Amino acid sequence: MSKIVVPLASGFEEIEAVSIIDVCRRAGIEVNVAGIETIDVVGANQIRIKCDCLFSDINFDNVDMIVLPGGWGGTNVLASNVFVQNKLKEFKKDNKYIGAICAAPFALHRAGVLNENYTCYPSVEDQIRQNGYTDNKKVVIDGKVLTSRGPATAICFSLEIVKLLEGKEMYETLKGGLLADFC
Amino acid sequence: MSKIVVPLASGFEEIEAVSIIDVCRRAGIEVNVAGIETIDVVGANQIRIKCDCLFSDINFDNVDMIVLPGGWGGTNVLASNVFVQNKLKEFKKDNKYIGAICAAPFALHRAGVLNENYTCYPSVEDQIRQNGYTDNKKVVIDGKVLTSRGPATAICFSLEIVKLLEGKEMYETLKGGLLADFC
Repeated sequence: MSKIVVPLASGFEEIEAVSIIDVCRRAGIEVNVAGIETIDVVGANQIRIKCDCLFSDINFDNVDMIVLPGGWGGTNVLASNVFVQNKLKEFKKDNKYIGAICAAPFALHRAGVLNENYTCYPSVEDQIRQNGYTDNKKVVIDGKVLTSRGPATAICFSLEIVKLLEGKEMYETLKGGLLADFC
Repeated sequence: MSKIVVPLASGFEEIEAVSIIDVCRRAGIEVNVAGIETIDVVGANQIRIKCDCLFSDINFDNVDMIVLPGGWGGTNVLASNVFVQNKLKEFKKDNKYIGAICAAPFALHRAGVLNENYTCYPSVEDQIRQNGYTDNKKVVIDGKVLTSRGPATAICFSLEIVKLLEGKEMYETLKGGLLADFC
């Protein structure tokens, strides 16, 4: 069974976080929803989610991927938290999967783990770099780093994660089940 | 300020519930996330959300709309809970807005408040009726009853609620901001 960690910090974007968790769990992936500061986390739109654990309590040995939801509040924490930044660097060094959507590719940029080609929420590229930025794809996969654009691309982003970790058949099944014909 | 209530019962579909709450709050709509059995509710994919209040504690006088997320677990509660069913009947009688997505149009059907034309998650129409069912629209609006299909239509459904309650300009702004060009 594949295993991913979704870190949540205060101000995370709720549609993005929940789409990743929901879709990946539908695929049978073990998803650890991990609070950075606390177990009870409040999103950018005041939706309150209770995490499964704290990020600092996770044993990352068997974790296949770290996936960051967007929202500037949460992204700023992910971009400045030393523990998160070090884990991202470790994952990159160990050639493990890393993903980020919306504002969160900025947290990957801060850790120096973003590959050449990427996407993000429009205008966030001004704080990353123009070079390699694409605005005409919902999801960009460059090596083992996946990036995506915003709330309405979150299901497509999650489905790409499913395709990488669980294969094309599970991807197609879930895409149909979610009615995500636009992905 | 418009005001809506989103009732959550154990087994609710998380992408649907969170999309409705998130998008409507972005529009400035007051959203009461209301637990049916308890304040802490666990969704169909084990995502734990803390509600703002209990459904039974709400004063519905100034509430403009009740919107039901799907997921069979939650829908069965919404379809059998007397308090919820009575509120839906009151809203229909008072010509107030009612919405439901995925499996939840079944709870509207049970309350006898579904209008002629509707949509729902594929196959749920077998438990409602074939007559008036449409599978070629993401959102069906018939009078003051809105219905939609599943997780990947939840943002479009939420945007239609915004258009009705807050107008076309807010709808267009949010549609752009969410990157929901497929709606």
